[in-house]
Amino acid sequence: MYRLSVRDHMMIAHSFHGEVFGPAQRLHGATYVVDVAFARPVLDDDDLVVDIGLASDALKAITGDFTLSNLDDVAAFRGRNTTTEFMARVVFDRMADAIVAGRLGEGAKGLTEMAVTLYESHIAWASYEGRLPAANG
Amino acid sequence: MYRLSVRDHMMIAHSFHGEVFGPAQRLHGATYVVDVAFARPVLDDDDLVVDIGLASDALKAITGDFTLSNLDDVAAFRGRNTTTEFMARVVFDRMADAIVAGRLGEGAKGLTEMAVTLYESHIAWASYEGRLPAANG
Amino acid sequence: MYRLSVRDHMMIAHSFHGEVFGPAQRLHGATYVVDVAFARPVLDDDDLVVDIGLASDALKAITGDFTLSNLDDVAAFRGRNTTTEFMARVVFDRMADAIVAGRLGEGAKGLTEMAVTLYESHIAWASYEGRLPAANG
Amino acid sequence: MYRLSVRDHMMIAHSFHGEVFGPAQRLHGATYVVDVAFARPVLDDDDLVVDIGLASDALKAITGDFTLSNLDDVAAFRGRNTTTEFMARVVFDRMADAIVAGRLGEGAKGLTEMAVTLYESHIAWASYEGRLPAANG
Amino acid sequence: MYRLSVRDHMMIAHSFHGEVFGPAQRLHGATYVVDVAFARPVLDDDDLVVDIGLASDALKAITGDFTLSNLDDVAAFRGRNTTTEFMARVVFDRMADAIVAGRLGEGAKGLTEMAVTLYESHIAWASYEGRLPAANG
Amino acid sequence: MYRLSVRDHMMIAHSFHGEVFGPAQRLHGATYVVDVAFARPVLDDDDLVVDIGLASDALKAITGDFTLSNLDDVAAFRGRNTTTEFMARVVFDRMADAIVAGRLGEGAKGLTEMAVTLYESHIAWASYEGRLPAANG
Repeated sequence: MYRLSVRDHMMIAHSFHGEVFGPAQRLHGATYVVDVAFARPVLDDDDLVVDIGLASDALKAITGDFTLSNLDDVAAFRGRNTTTEFMARVVFDRMADAIVAGRLGEGAKGLTEMAVTLYESHIAWASYEGRLPAANG
Repeated sequence: MYRLSVRDHMMIAHSFHGEVFGPAQRLHGATYVVDVAFARPVLDDDDLVVDIGLASDALKAITGDFTLSNLDDVAAFRGRNTTTEFMARVVFDRMADAIVAGRLGEGAKGLTEMAVTLYESHIAWASYEGRLPAANG
Repeated sequence: MYRLSVRDHMMIAHSFHGEVFGPAQRLHGATYVVDVAFARPVLDDDDLVVDIGLASDALKAITGDFTLSNLDDVAAFRGRNTTTEFMARVVFDRMADAIVAGRLGEGAKGLTEMAVTLYESHIAWASYEGRLPAANG
Repeated sequence: MYRLSVRDHMMIAHSFHGEVFGPAQRLHGATYVVDVAFARPVLDDDDLVVDIGLASDALKAITGDFTLSNLDDVAAFRGRNTTTEFMARVVFDRMADAIVAGRLGEGAKGLTEMAVTLYESHIAWASYEGRLPAANG
Repeated sequence: MYRLSVRDHMMIAHSFHGEVFGPAQRLHGATYVVDVAFARPVLDDDDLVVDIGLASDALKAITGDFTLSNLDDVAAFRGRNTTTEFMARVVFDRMADAIVAGRLGEGAKGLTEMAVTLYESHIAWASYEGRLPAANG
Repeated sequence: MYRLSVRDHMMIAHSFHGEVFGPAQRLHGATYVVDVAFARPVLDDDDLVVDIGLASDALKAITGDFTLSNLDDVAAFRGRNTTTEFMARVVFDRMADAIVAGRLGEGAKGLTEMAVTLYESHIAWASYEGRLPAANG
């Protein structure tokens, strides 16, 4: 399996609900350094996993929707906790949509798996990985 | 699959036996930066992989048993070489026990896989990963 | 000159005021990975720059005052922008106070300089460094 | 599964062909920091994944063939693009050959999987992973 | 002294002349991860060292002039060796010019020192630091 | 000022004496990732701070004297605590001697300052920096 990874980041505010979170129930924030790893079993005709320029632009569009904002205000997240692992899945789903919509180029439709990792500090990070729709074609 | 990782470290002395180790047969030491990645296919009701506070405490309890000691003195390791890969498995087994014993909370029983990585320097590291008992329920 | 550095982190929410900040005027947040470097020209009688345990505890006390909170609510910061460079100075001043108060041990009174660095992402960080009161004795 | 990883690097010039590469069609270069992760389900009799000295030497021999050279001049790569993902596979294949040839020791024949990662910058990297011939015995 | 640092990178080809360089006399290449640290003794009225957006744009303009090119073709470098330390000075001088030209904003004219670091691999890096013209006003 | 830095590492055992060290009075160990930064105000005729090959070899010779050993057995350290900051000075002094002895080449005699940093973990490191004898010529 071949993989290509790109990195960006987002700086957000949020709060959690539930006793398990203790003081993290208060409004606070995080820098998420975001890595997306795109995977496929064979390279395309240009010897690429994916066009790195389009992949980076797509990631910037996704982090751009969240950076410098308060995740507590995002309607789609109402009733959920925007934990690092939850946000990894959010980025995964949005990137999967971008691939299906062709925003990473036609070649990206050969991608079969993806993993998204969010680093919240030098001692904690979380990820979500799964197969891509194209893999089930 | 969702993953959450936490990091700690331990500073130990040890020696190896066997010609393959060359000068590492002498008493020497290492700082092991220890990462534990906990995995499960779905988040719990709080949108968590595992309670990060309990996970960090459990890791500190494990590294605390070894840090600032000489692994050559540990009875359980008699006759073995405490290589980085061997110690990755030791941390894995102890954390798996902590999960079964409930020390990472009830929710942690939903964890299905785990990976432990020990960094011994900027140019070498080792890991052990496997399924957790709960995964076989 | 000898230096010893320790690392911790804090996760905060805040907003900025002033047109120069553009979208960062909105409520958002950051993880600050915080490094403090203590300096002195000669080691103490134990061959130390400072007691690393006391230094780490003092840093945790300082980050503990801010982590998991909204800096916009801190009275002492009213009318200021809690930029990364501003917060580096805040940590510097608090650690200097801790040294003077003896919370890093008697030996710490031999420290002459200090530098505090806050990493806000993988591509941006800020610091404040200066002499310590003891240096002017 | 146990894994052991070692790191080295190579500094190369190259150019790409194909419109998708835009300005990267020009002659340019890269530092590739190269990680090789060796994997096996059980440790050998010395509690090792592989002899780390032999593994490091084998990696240095491979990076040594490419470092300080222009990949456009390598006959074996004629007609291909020496992208980061392509070069990850090249290193993988050469290391697999070294294992089969016994250059990592007899014990290395117990290795079943391998992953090679090439970091091209702080924001992009690529890898190739696969099973080793021995795994199919 | 306050400092703010930003990071970018450039991927270049080049060769060296002089026996001291050994095999590095051949055409090869490097990824330079480039950090610029801006320094001043007091913050501006917005509690900033410098506008981080303008600073990042100015750095991207400088790396953009060199990335994906062959430094052997740059007329200004004829007769010089484009070593990592030499290139650190080149970036320093260009950034100093950008500051004087006002491209980092009026506030940037309060900057008194600057340091530029270029990382060529995980085991080697070089820097150039000096005072800025404004500091001599 | 120009600087060039190189990195290596050493893996040692040791123990400390003095109540301030608490459990670190027991035999334990550390991996020290060692960075040496060489500085000079002007580049030499080859546009270098120092011959990076000779500098790396000299550093490997120094770390080679300590790695895979027990520092408690080194006669020269009898009665001292081999703390991270103490060992930074040891490496500094040995490298300064190597420069004077000409082992980094004739050009290295133009070096005026040096800094040695030893990383003992992801959250602690120490350094010693000073002027070089040649600087006082």
